[in-house]
Amino acid sequence: MNITFLGTGSGVPSKFRNVSSLVLEMHQERDEVWLFDCGEATQHQILNTPIKPRKINKIFITHIHGDHIFGLPGLLSSRSFQEGTSTLEIYGPKGIKEFIETALSISQTHLKYTIKYYEVTDGVLFEDNQIKVSAMSLVHGVPSYGFLIEEADQIGPLLPNKLKEKGVQPGPIFQEIKNNEVITLNDGTNIVRDDVTGPDIHGRKIAILGDTLPFDDVIDFVRDVDVLVHEATFIDKDAKLAQQYNHSTSLQAAKIAKEANVKQLLLNHISSRYQQDQLHEELEHLKEIINHVTYVKDFDSYEVLKEGR
Amino acid sequence: MNITFLGTGSGVPSKFRNVSSLVLEMHQERDEVWLFDCGEATQHQILNTPIKPRKINKIFITHIHGDHIFGLPGLLSSRSFQEGTSTLEIYGPKGIKEFIETALSISQTHLKYTIKYYEVTDGVLFEDNQIKVSAMSLVHGVPSYGFLIEEADQIGPLLPNKLKEKGVQPGPIFQEIKNNEVITLNDGTNIVRDDVTGPDIHGRKIAILGDTLPFDDVIDFVRDVDVLVHEATFIDKDAKLAQQYNHSTSLQAAKIAKEANVKQLLLNHISSRYQQDQLHEELEHLKEIINHVTYVKDFDSYEVLKEGR
Repeated sequence: MNITFLGTGSGVPSKFRNVSSLVLEMHQERDEVWLFDCGEATQHQILNTPIKPRKINKIFITHIHGDHIFGLPGLLSSRSFQEGTSTLEIYGPKGIKEFIETALSISQTHLKYTIKYYEVTDGVLFEDNQIKVSAMSLVHGVPSYGFLIEEADQIGPLLPNKLKEKGVQPGPIFQEIKNNEVITLNDGTNIVRDDVTGPDIHGRKIAILGDTLPFDDVIDFVRDVDVLVHEATFIDKDAKLAQQYNHSTSLQAAKIAKEANVKQLLLNHISSRYQQDQLHEELEHLKEIINHVTYVKDFDSYEVLKEGR
Repeated sequence: MNITFLGTGSGVPSKFRNVSSLVLEMHQERDEVWLFDCGEATQHQILNTPIKPRKINKIFITHIHGDHIFGLPGLLSSRSFQEGTSTLEIYGPKGIKEFIETALSISQTHLKYTIKYYEVTDGVLFEDNQIKVSAMSLVHGVPSYGFLIEEADQIGPLLPNKLKEKGVQPGPIFQEIKNNEVITLNDGTNIVRDDVTGPDIHGRKIAILGDTLPFDDVIDFVRDVDVLVHEATFIDKDAKLAQQYNHSTSLQAAKIAKEANVKQLLLNHISSRYQQDQLHEELEHLKEIINHVTYVKDFDSYEVLKEGR
């Protein structure tokens, strides 16, 4: 699992930060690539990465502000132009479908693939035996959502010594043991999985939030995640502006992350008004609250490690 | 008058050419900036130029394909964000208004300025005492237009010797002579403007065409222009593809330009399939047909000189 930031600015693009988008690559886990938000020129940013638009199979949109959606018509067109033929699923708030369909229809763009639209509401959006995605309403003046991606826990590794003790010989039986809580061998011996495996490997948890004011209820939603991507449009000295425009400061995000026992906080959606040295100074204060915190930059990439908590 | 190319590619953006847009700056002439087409990330390209989105007062759209319009919602939003408050006029084919209004409404973008929409049809779109813009239908599968920008001819310079001969002393009378075909001095002398001015200064003419197959009628439309911006999606060896996709080759564009007595041909909308050395080689052949011809690149800028024919 790898998160790459394609746009880490807020509102309008600048020379140094594009508007919002990030990509979650799960090549090893399920050969899938998910996109979160798609501001204008997201497809241009992708040109500078190894990501192939045709590999993107799910897009999640946090909210309908232009800096999070205006790149959709172009990306969807190029995905088709570049031989993307597999179905694309788009999870977004009300309005996303009308926006996309109007743009594609007026421009007479005929895609070579099908789009399935899912309107985001609070609760589980998607779940299979490997991964679950849930949404929670945030506070931003328009419907804005946070997404929680939870990988299922995995059975711990088989313990060779324990298996030997019970007289199990290596072979296809190993997989059978992993797949079942209890199995009975030919000689009548019961093998209880928990007796012959190490502790469960905890699935990874990632929370990616849209634009929001800080609020207490979000703490439970992001509790114990390995990575929290939180907006930080403003720094602490501009807390009044943050409040006025329905945004957060990085200090507010850090306090939430600390309270929720977040392992790593990635601060995103940063106003272009701040110089790099201002952010550097602010970061020093944030580190007094939470150890693993950083302001992300366009093209920064983070591997989310298993058991890396 | 200055033309700057913001996107010279075709269909989808590449690392080297963005999708279509160019800007016509008339700072000295009328303190106006006009944009022609607005593919995705046009506002990003503008960040690398001295152009201010708030200064753009007219946008002309040749046709509704995505690579010519998907940058509009973002550019219009940023124009407002960057304190653009003056009315913006948009001339485009049917559908442009619905595309823009849907994008702005769904994204809850509230502009600080008014947009006036004009649906393009064949004939004069706009005219004042200084400049005229006309449109002509091209051939591209969807309604696609060429635009002809014609500067009015100007009265030639006053000739000091001739004025002296007639006993005219320098003063406000000079401007009065320029403004009227004939004036009568206090002593009863008639001054005929043509007798005391040099030859008229011809206004400049620029033609900017949307995507099109080559066709004979366009020759009269672009006759004698100083600058013709013509699409050249393909090179001669791919003439069949050009035909199939309703596009032109650079050779076809050169022949039209030659036939129409065009002074300078700027080849635009170039497929990313061609390497720079291929275009260089093709250009050698084109120069056998017309002297002043070039393949444009993103950020190329051309000054259109008066009497520079």
